[in-house]
Amino acid sequence: MTTERPMPTATLLIACPDRPGLIAQITGLVGDLGGNIIDADQHTDPEAGQFFMRLAIEREGVDRAALESGIVQVAAQRSMQWRLNWRDEPTRLAVLVSKQGHCLADLLFRWQAGELEGDIALVIGNHADHQAITEAAGVPFVHLPVTAPTKRGQESRIGELLSETKVDCVVLARYMQVLSPEFVADWPARIINIHHSFLPAFAGARPYHRAFERGVKIIGATSHYVTDDLDEGPIIAQATTTVGHRDTVEDLVRKGRDLERVVLADAVRAHLQDRILVSGNKTVVFE
Amino acid sequence: MTTERPMPTATLLIACPDRPGLIAQITGLVGDLGGNIIDADQHTDPEAGQFFMRLAIEREGVDRAALESGIVQVAAQRSMQWRLNWRDEPTRLAVLVSKQGHCLADLLFRWQAGELEGDIALVIGNHADHQAITEAAGVPFVHLPVTAPTKRGQESRIGELLSETKVDCVVLARYMQVLSPEFVADWPARIINIHHSFLPAFAGARPYHRAFERGVKIIGATSHYVTDDLDEGPIIAQATTTVGHRDTVEDLVRKGRDLERVVLADAVRAHLQDRILVSGNKTVVFE
Amino acid sequence: MTTERPMPTATLLIACPDRPGLIAQITGLVGDLGGNIIDADQHTDPEAGQFFMRLAIEREGVDRAALESGIVQVAAQRSMQWRLNWRDEPTRLAVLVSKQGHCLADLLFRWQAGELEGDIALVIGNHADHQAITEAAGVPFVHLPVTAPTKRGQESRIGELLSETKVDCVVLARYMQVLSPEFVADWPARIINIHHSFLPAFAGARPYHRAFERGVKIIGATSHYVTDDLDEGPIIAQATTTVGHRDTVEDLVRKGRDLERVVLADAVRAHLQDRILVSGNKTVVFE
Amino acid sequence: MTTERPMPTATLLIACPDRPGLIAQITGLVGDLGGNIIDADQHTDPEAGQFFMRLAIEREGVDRAALESGIVQVAAQRSMQWRLNWRDEPTRLAVLVSKQGHCLADLLFRWQAGELEGDIALVIGNHADHQAITEAAGVPFVHLPVTAPTKRGQESRIGELLSETKVDCVVLARYMQVLSPEFVADWPARIINIHHSFLPAFAGARPYHRAFERGVKIIGATSHYVTDDLDEGPIIAQATTTVGHRDTVEDLVRKGRDLERVVLADAVRAHLQDRILVSGNKTVVFE
Repeated sequence: MTTERPMPTATLLIACPDRPGLIAQITGLVGDLGGNIIDADQHTDPEAGQFFMRLAIEREGVDRAALESGIVQVAAQRSMQWRLNWRDEPTRLAVLVSKQGHCLADLLFRWQAGELEGDIALVIGNHADHQAITEAAGVPFVHLPVTAPTKRGQESRIGELLSETKVDCVVLARYMQVLSPEFVADWPARIINIHHSFLPAFAGARPYHRAFERGVKIIGATSHYVTDDLDEGPIIAQATTTVGHRDTVEDLVRKGRDLERVVLADAVRAHLQDRILVSGNKTVVFE
Repeated sequence: MTTERPMPTATLLIACPDRPGLIAQITGLVGDLGGNIIDADQHTDPEAGQFFMRLAIEREGVDRAALESGIVQVAAQRSMQWRLNWRDEPTRLAVLVSKQGHCLADLLFRWQAGELEGDIALVIGNHADHQAITEAAGVPFVHLPVTAPTKRGQESRIGELLSETKVDCVVLARYMQVLSPEFVADWPARIINIHHSFLPAFAGARPYHRAFERGVKIIGATSHYVTDDLDEGPIIAQATTTVGHRDTVEDLVRKGRDLERVVLADAVRAHLQDRILVSGNKTVVFE
Repeated sequence: MTTERPMPTATLLIACPDRPGLIAQITGLVGDLGGNIIDADQHTDPEAGQFFMRLAIEREGVDRAALESGIVQVAAQRSMQWRLNWRDEPTRLAVLVSKQGHCLADLLFRWQAGELEGDIALVIGNHADHQAITEAAGVPFVHLPVTAPTKRGQESRIGELLSETKVDCVVLARYMQVLSPEFVADWPARIINIHHSFLPAFAGARPYHRAFERGVKIIGATSHYVTDDLDEGPIIAQATTTVGHRDTVEDLVRKGRDLERVVLADAVRAHLQDRILVSGNKTVVFE
Repeated sequence: MTTERPMPTATLLIACPDRPGLIAQITGLVGDLGGNIIDADQHTDPEAGQFFMRLAIEREGVDRAALESGIVQVAAQRSMQWRLNWRDEPTRLAVLVSKQGHCLADLLFRWQAGELEGDIALVIGNHADHQAITEAAGVPFVHLPVTAPTKRGQESRIGELLSETKVDCVVLARYMQVLSPEFVADWPARIINIHHSFLPAFAGARPYHRAFERGVKIIGATSHYVTDDLDEGPIIAQATTTVGHRDTVEDLVRKGRDLERVVLADAVRAHLQDRILVSGNKTVVFE
């Protein structure tokens, strides 16, 4: 159960209007300041005229201050958005959960197996169901029940806990509450949800029931960043599996659990490895 | 290119309210009249309270008249719908096509390779593009152009041709015209369409463009029986494949073509083998 | 985490030389003795001349003694092998495990979620690693370390424990010891193993390393019944996933874990639902 | 059937021992000489200590002579292997075929649909079966029958034809003759084969029959570069599909045809787009 975590590298993510010479300029800058580039990936969106790049840089030997100020200069010239993550500390996740525990259990297991380049710092449940499994993994569990009248207060309390625990990213592991626009605005591209359908089909409630009624021959799951539009945020990962006329709604739910676990874990892994860039309402997910 | 076609068996499809003893009654009847059952499959839909069965029966040695009158009696008792296909003649298909030829070419190839238990008797195109490939396969091609004012007349002409050619089933192989309710009513569960999305997502026009704009990570294709509600008929087969941020709309179209060919061929094969029963707006597809 | 288990039905599995009239004879017998057949599936292997059938029968209203003696009579006439499982008691599983815990954790989770029609009665580990997670699920864990000189004794002790605990089926959840021919002979078609490759490729040790060295673009997992020939027993379920040049051996191991969990669970579910018949070195797995 | 082909870009492929600064050096060189880099992808194999890169460069505005001499210099310093393809002319393919025509028909269709960035210049068959379909696509077909005594001569004649037709790459589309080591040596990493199994399982003859006998639940197809070791060359692409106990050998063959077509086309497309680098007996296939 203890697989070695890979040696962390620093990651530089950039997005800017496409211009010739960008790759050479950025990789040259990093190299001149002692940074050994382990992995580089880039993408050009010709419609949007945007350029995206991810560099993985060895942490040893690089002049951090010089690199940061160099990037600031390029960013000013190029109207470039960027994020440089030195990875001195693991990224910290909070998981929000309701009654369904399969995604939470899966994330805890993967974290303990060393699959996630980050830490699960906190689990918050609006039901108490998963306290034991969370604490058995050595993670604090906070039970914050919610009802219509207490919803605003409960959400503020979540915000405080995330702040106190220095959380970087929130994972909704089948959390059945809709977050307020104010909350979502505080966490742009930092809340990952799992929806139990292949979006855009069956957005909203009870997707397996609706898939059953429509008589589809495939079902799916979708992980996406949360935005104000329910189930409309940028898609990070999707997967599907086949179903047939013998499958009941319960079979769809069971098969779907296997999809949800894998699709959510894929998204969380990609986020933790700084492999995702958001472009409009779409994602670039480097490999 | 010449694979042996399997020896045809007669097929009996039945659907009726579920009652104890149905399997024994029907299989007993067939056996008592000399019919050797090669394959039996059945399904109970507990919500609808419906029972469905398909029997494949050796054609040799069975007393056909007695079997048919026996089934008529059971059908009366059991409020049973049934279809008994002796397969003395191959089922005859007509393929309707517009400019996109990949599904037509694929069906012609599969037919020539012996994959289809039926014959392609006729191809009708509202463009002339695919005349050569059709005639090279030894199949008549009729060019029936269509414009808004000539639509009604063109459709009547299609109906006449289908009737003259003794067609049993119509395949819309990316035929880009919507058929009228009158035409559809004449061919219940006998018109198979391929739609280039994983329905119910992206019903209607330009699904690959809309999939691209939404930023999905999977695309799909769906074959279904045509009903009055566009892209809403009973689904027969679906498949999906992964796409990524590097894929342009043209890549989606190209990848989609591979899905469409396989999904449409699956549906046509299932129909030709009498493996599909329609139940409400869903299908039972036996294997 | 508590999904309702489906109402158990009795299951009758039969295998015999193919003869006309079998389906009607068996289903008639069951029906005449008050058994309502919920589901019937059958398969004929024309090469082997063998007929296989599975019936799911409502437990209420059937004359058990009469049905059993009826089947005994047919079995004598038809050289028929059969197994009738009334399901008065849940099937009892033992899970054997070594250091890798992902398959065990997955089975425990699925059992608690109600996905398995049986009980995990016992976990035996040749290492102590998974005692806590097992006991947290309310299942006894026995630590039986093994070395070359103690191997024979350890295996006898396993046999005693299985017997004392009234286990019906043994699951090797990445158990890294080869069982002796004597042990295997005691449990025909009742030991399920998961092998971490798409057999017959990469049978034996270190399949992910060998897959990496060969440069394959897909990896897989295989569940099978254990026979005397290592990794050569009848295959129950297989699945594959894509890999690429960026994937290290560790990535293959990680991706493989997701396959192994699903493929082993599929096999265990099929076994517990009496859906598997062994025919020579192959399986019939009804749906 | 006429999809626009993408505007060709020049491609530079390099492979060399991994050293810091390579990306910046190469991309800088290209940029300084007027080359606009449209796409860059790279991979480091830490075990082999090798670095691989592919650049797609706009053909307009670049000083070709200067770029080539610059690369020659870097190559000398860095022990770098490289290939620069200006794409002034489409890559020319020859397809070798025997009796099975599905892969040939598929490649012809894709070529006509504009899916392939290259031309099918010639088809050679050791049977005459596919002359009509080839010539209907406007491609010359040469029938070169082969028997044991004429094998050497037939192969020489193939070599002459390839040379006369200025072919760059040979596709074995289910060509059932083993090529001699001398022939293979003339075409390193330029002969693409499709094998009808998921290698390394079922290398050699009759893989579908052997898969059927083993009772596997998945079948596959593999495209690879041809080397002296039969079915042992570097794998380019693989795919699998599920099979079950109802599938006969003929069903495996039929399902396999769909896999073979897609897997071979994937490999040919990747080769034509200069996306494949061979490293030892493995491939790097950029996306």
